[in-house]
Amino acid sequence: MLEFIRSDLAQLAAYNTQHTDNSQESKSSEILVDRVDVNESPYDLPDELKQKLSWTYQQAIENNRYPDGGYESLKRAIADYVNESANNITAANISIGNGSDELIRSLLIATCIGGEGSILVADPTFSMYRILAQTLGVSVVTIGRSLTNFEMDLTEAQTAIAVTQTPPIRAVFVVHPNSPTGNALTFAELSWLRSLPQNILVAVDEAYFEFSQTSVADELLQHPNWVILRTFSKAFRLAAHRVGYAIADPELITALEKVRLPYNLSSFTQAAALVAVTHRRQLLSTISLTLTERTRLTQALSQHPEFQVWESAANFVYLRLKNADANEKLATICQTLKDQGTLIRHTGNGLRISIGTPEENQRTIARFKKVSKY
Amino acid sequence: MLEFIRSDLAQLAAYNTQHTDNSQESKSSEILVDRVDVNESPYDLPDELKQKLSWTYQQAIENNRYPDGGYESLKRAIADYVNESANNITAANISIGNGSDELIRSLLIATCIGGEGSILVADPTFSMYRILAQTLGVSVVTIGRSLTNFEMDLTEAQTAIAVTQTPPIRAVFVVHPNSPTGNALTFAELSWLRSLPQNILVAVDEAYFEFSQTSVADELLQHPNWVILRTFSKAFRLAAHRVGYAIADPELITALEKVRLPYNLSSFTQAAALVAVTHRRQLLSTISLTLTERTRLTQALSQHPEFQVWESAANFVYLRLKNADANEKLATICQTLKDQGTLIRHTGNGLRISIGTPEENQRTIARFKKVSKY
Repeated sequence: MLEFIRSDLAQLAAYNTQHTDNSQESKSSEILVDRVDVNESPYDLPDELKQKLSWTYQQAIENNRYPDGGYESLKRAIADYVNESANNITAANISIGNGSDELIRSLLIATCIGGEGSILVADPTFSMYRILAQTLGVSVVTIGRSLTNFEMDLTEAQTAIAVTQTPPIRAVFVVHPNSPTGNALTFAELSWLRSLPQNILVAVDEAYFEFSQTSVADELLQHPNWVILRTFSKAFRLAAHRVGYAIADPELITALEKVRLPYNLSSFTQAAALVAVTHRRQLLSTISLTLTERTRLTQALSQHPEFQVWESAANFVYLRLKNADANEKLATICQTLKDQGTLIRHTGNGLRISIGTPEENQRTIARFKKVSKY
Repeated sequence: MLEFIRSDLAQLAAYNTQHTDNSQESKSSEILVDRVDVNESPYDLPDELKQKLSWTYQQAIENNRYPDGGYESLKRAIADYVNESANNITAANISIGNGSDELIRSLLIATCIGGEGSILVADPTFSMYRILAQTLGVSVVTIGRSLTNFEMDLTEAQTAIAVTQTPPIRAVFVVHPNSPTGNALTFAELSWLRSLPQNILVAVDEAYFEFSQTSVADELLQHPNWVILRTFSKAFRLAAHRVGYAIADPELITALEKVRLPYNLSSFTQAAALVAVTHRRQLLSTISLTLTERTRLTQALSQHPEFQVWESAANFVYLRLKNADANEKLATICQTLKDQGTLIRHTGNGLRISIGTPEENQRTIARFKKVSKY
C-alpha cells in the first residue's frame, strides 16, 4: 500500500475500455466481428480523405516538432460548423480536447475539485462523468429517470440541489440525446436546465447531435453557465484520433484553456479533425442511411415479445426485458451474441446496440432471433 | 465572473506554448527560422519510417474505431528499451501518457489534489510541474539551487519537508538532467532522494536521458515511491505525436492507469511510438553528433566575456550574464537573435539554447557574436 496515493483513489477500480480484447481475439481466431458496442460510425473515412491525410502526414507534418498548441484554424472551422445550427459562435467560444473525456475532466477540475463542488447526473447515463469525478475525488449525486421515457426525475433533481451542501452541486451533466437510453432532452428537462442558477454549470453533451439534430446551441450564448460538448468520434468517424470540443461563453473557454494540457492534440489529430470538418457534407451523408437502419433495427427488435425497445434519437437502439429483474438474462444474451460474432453493450439494466452497416444490422437482427428462444 | 469557476483558477494566467506564433510568422514572411527554443530534436524521422507510418495509417488504422486502450504491445516494447539500462522492468511497470505532461498531471491527481499534499520543486526547473499543480489547486513549495552548479539546496529542501504541514509535501519533482540548467543529479541529491520517506513520491523526469545516459532506472524497483518519467518528444523525434511514459512500481502504475483517460493516445500516435522504439538504434544514432555540437556551442559561447556558460548533460546549453541582474539585457539578446531568425528561450534568469543541426548551431554562434557588442 503506497502511502502517498489518495486513499479514495486506491479503492477505485480502473476503467476497462470496451472491445479491445474482443478485437484481438477476432484477429487471432480470424472471425469477422461486428463491433456494434461502442456507438462508433461503421464507416471509415473515404479513401480520398485517407490519402489526403496520408499526404499531409508525409509532406506537412514535422514529427520532431511540437504541435501548434493554439488550434486557431481548427477552432475557426469548428465555429463555422456550429453556426450551421447557431449564430455568432467564434473561435473564442471553442476549446478542443483529447476526446470529450478530456473536456469533462477539465470542467470538473475548473469547478469541483478540492471540495468545491459535487456533480449531478441522472442514471443511466454516460459513465465517464462518474468515473472522471471519482478519480478527481469529486462527489457524484445520482437521481433517477422515468421508466417510460427516461426523462430525468426533475423533482428529485431539484431536491438534490436544495439539500446537497457538503459540497453543493456545482455542475449538472446531461447527454442530449442520452446514452444508453437514446432520448433527447424533453421540454420539461430543458425548462429545468434554463431555470438553474448561474452558480451551477450545465454541461449538455451533444455527442450524438449529428444523428438527433437536436441542439441547445442556438440559445447557448444566453446562458453563460452552459457548455455544449461535441465529438468527432461518432458521426465524423474519427474515434481513432481523439477529438472533442466544447462550445461556451469565452470566460468558461478561458478556464478550459488554462486547464488543458498545452499540447493536448497531436499534429496528425489536428490535421484529421480539420479534414473531417472541412469535408463534413461528404462524411455526414451516411447519416440518413443510419437513421433508416435505426428504424429497421428498432422495429425488428420490437417484435421480440420479451423486449421493450425505445425510440432512439441517436446512432444506437436501447432495450430492456419487460421482466425488469433480468440482468443475468441480459448478460446471457450479450454473451450468446458475442459467441456468434456480434458485440453489443450490456449497460444500465438494458442492452445498447449501435447502428452498423446494413449487413451488420441484418446479422444483428438474425442473431437476436436465435436468442429469442430463451 | 462565472461563479462556478474555482476562484484560484480564475486568477491564473493561461500557459502560452512556445514558438507557435513564430512559425506562423516564418511561414508568412518566408524567413527560414532556426527553432532552437524548445529542445526538440532538429531531425525529422527518416523517410523510410515516415513511409512506413504512412502505410500503417492507410492500411491498418480504422479512423472510425476507438484506439486499443490497453497499449500492451507498446508497453512491452518500451519495457525492452528501459531494460537496456535497468533490469526486470515489464509492461506492468509502464504507463503511457499524452506526453509526459499528462503523467505529471496524473501523478498530482493521484497524490495531492483535494488538500492532500503539496509538491516541492527547486527553481529554475521545468515549468509544467508548477503550472499543472496550480491548475489543480495544489500548493507548490519552491527551494533554491547552488549558483555554481545548480545543485538543489538540500538543507532548504529538508527544512521545507519538515515545516510544510498544510498540506504536507507529498511529491518531489526533479529533472535529471535539469532543464533549463542542464545539470544531472549529483551524488548528494541522489542520496537525499534515497533518504526520503515512503510517504513522499519522488518523480525523476528523465526527459533528456538519451543525451545524458544518466538514469536512476537501475535502482527504481528498490524504491516503490519513485517514478521515472521519459518522453518520445526529444531524442526519439516525436514531439508532434505526444507520447511520454512512466516507469514505476506496479501499484503506482495501477493508480496512474486509473487516473488516465481511457483512450489517451490516438491510434496513429501509438503506431508512431511503436515504430520509434522499434527503430531506436537508427533514431538515436544522431545523438553523438548532438553531443559533439553541444561541446562546440558551449565553447563558442564561453568566449563571450559577459557570459557564464555551464556544462550541459542534455541537448541544450544554458548561460547567464555574469552581471546577475540582467533580465532586461537577456530579453534584448533574445529579441535580437529572433530578429535574425534564431529562436532561443529566455528562462530562469538565463538563456537556454537547444542543440540544432550543425548549420543551425553555426548560425547561432555567428548571431551571438553580433550581439556581443552590447
